[in-house]
Amino acid sequence: MDEFETIARLFVPLARGEPGAFGLGDDAALLTPRPGFDLVLTKDAIVGGVHFFPDDPPAAIGAKLMRVNLSDLAAKGASPRAFLLAAAIPPTVDEAWLAGFAAGIGADLDEFGGALVGGDTVSTPGPAVFSLTAIGEVPTGTMIRRAGARPGDLVCVSGTIGDAALYVAHRLRGVAVAGLDHLEERYRYPRPRLALGAALRGLARAGCDVSDGLVADLGHLCEQSGLGAVIEAGAVPLSPAARATLERAPGLLATILTGGDDYELVFALPPEADPAALTDVSVIGRFEQGQGVRVLDRAGSPLELDRTGWRHPVGRGEDAR
Amino acid sequence: MDEFETIARLFVPLARGEPGAFGLGDDAALLTPRPGFDLVLTKDAIVGGVHFFPDDPPAAIGAKLMRVNLSDLAAKGASPRAFLLAAAIPPTVDEAWLAGFAAGIGADLDEFGGALVGGDTVSTPGPAVFSLTAIGEVPTGTMIRRAGARPGDLVCVSGTIGDAALYVAHRLRGVAVAGLDHLEERYRYPRPRLALGAALRGLARAGCDVSDGLVADLGHLCEQSGLGAVIEAGAVPLSPAARATLERAPGLLATILTGGDDYELVFALPPEADPAALTDVSVIGRFEQGQGVRVLDRAGSPLELDRTGWRHPVGRGEDAR
Repeated sequence: MDEFETIARLFVPLARGEPGAFGLGDDAALLTPRPGFDLVLTKDAIVGGVHFFPDDPPAAIGAKLMRVNLSDLAAKGASPRAFLLAAAIPPTVDEAWLAGFAAGIGADLDEFGGALVGGDTVSTPGPAVFSLTAIGEVPTGTMIRRAGARPGDLVCVSGTIGDAALYVAHRLRGVAVAGLDHLEERYRYPRPRLALGAALRGLARAGCDVSDGLVADLGHLCEQSGLGAVIEAGAVPLSPAARATLERAPGLLATILTGGDDYELVFALPPEADPAALTDVSVIGRFEQGQGVRVLDRAGSPLELDRTGWRHPVGRGEDAR
Repeated sequence: MDEFETIARLFVPLARGEPGAFGLGDDAALLTPRPGFDLVLTKDAIVGGVHFFPDDPPAAIGAKLMRVNLSDLAAKGASPRAFLLAAAIPPTVDEAWLAGFAAGIGADLDEFGGALVGGDTVSTPGPAVFSLTAIGEVPTGTMIRRAGARPGDLVCVSGTIGDAALYVAHRLRGVAVAGLDHLEERYRYPRPRLALGAALRGLARAGCDVSDGLVADLGHLCEQSGLGAVIEAGAVPLSPAARATLERAPGLLATILTGGDDYELVFALPPEADPAALTDVSVIGRFEQGQGVRVLDRAGSPLELDRTGWRHPVGRGEDAR
């Protein structure tokens, strides 16, 4: 397989006619932001056996790489504009696999916007490593930061929490779950909350995505905002599958609250805001003076969680930031 | 080693007080280009055992990662502004190694400008993989493209060609060389030609850096410009070390002309330009109608080269783009 030809055939169409991509035929891409917009830049990497299962479909891996980055853009209120892909590919990867991977990226470009404008493809004797740089736009001065929450602000989350973590627990530890298909879909195809993120510009005082786990990511907002937060475990939104799983095994609450890979948004709304005006958003607590995240049960008693974050135990790697 | 702490301690200072980096404490960075400037984006990845020798000093590897990307910015006429780093780190890498690696990046930020604004650190069971996204600025409309050379334009190169390739040939194949220290320095610490690149804005009709090998990279200019080129082997600038090596083993000419990792610039100047007004630039040939690169010996006879490019044979990987 001549890698130059493979790139030409598989990745060039992902430039989607973006003029600044030069058909991926130059050393660099050109990007001219629209007047009145800031650029938002993020970059996440995934490693085979660490961040995805080796038997995950290649299109799902391409989609996941896109979505972990799109989720960061969403959390910041940005709209996707351009991507750069670095792919370190082991000799075991063949062209059909790469075609599936590229198709997963392409489908997400079609659905969420933006174009592949550059990158690099190299070989590695190790597992596949992919890193994606995602560049989005926000109107000047409207990027949602981790810092900015105030005491009394509402702690809000989108969607449901814990599905992906339950899927991983099932795969790695044989944990019995209900609704496995739903959990697997949530793990493989997280939904970047781009529309919600855009709606939160000028409204949310702080926000990030739930990638490391709800408690850890809310902790990031607290740390950067110089605050603490208290949430009610019973208010955390669960899918029917997660709810049924939890009814059978209440001890999985810690997995749900601290597991990662949800790619929902957690954010601070001022107390006078109307969360019900936002689609698929739940209020789960309040920011408060202090530090750290307190989790209360239905009786108002503090819950001790056995871990505060999630570090991708699929392989032997750990994930930071 | 807690990777979060390591990142905080080692990488946060590389943000260099850039406000849009948020001290590497947010999910994303913010970048607002100056009015009247375009952004130039490039991304290169390097793999342990493929693009660098495992015993290369970690600071040299950090510098090399910076410089392969800075060289792309230089070739496009851009000035560095921001970088995003993805690091996939094997368990064999310890904190001292990472500190050296970060120091290499930091020294280059000091020397060449820009700041680290974001990225990701993950673990891998395989070799270290680093990818860097480099973002530079050019005055609007002045990016130097691969396309744009015209028949009769001068083929110019900066510096000297072939030093890094001779070092690699020595390390991998035991080729006898003169001036090993010089060759090693050139391999480990290529000099991004940022000042020359800036001087070429509005002057060079096309350009790229010499990363895959002189003949291959000149071939990229030809292909994108829809032309051919002819160069004289005897006009290709050589260091004293390369010249002495070649005198002992004339067969190494192919290695010099087709080897990679020089990170000099190859570019097209209009025939009426004065290359002597540029520092450290040699004219080695002309663009012409047709396609492909012809290499002539001192007698004007065509030379057959055994390869037209270089694909990083340090390990078993290959490099594309």
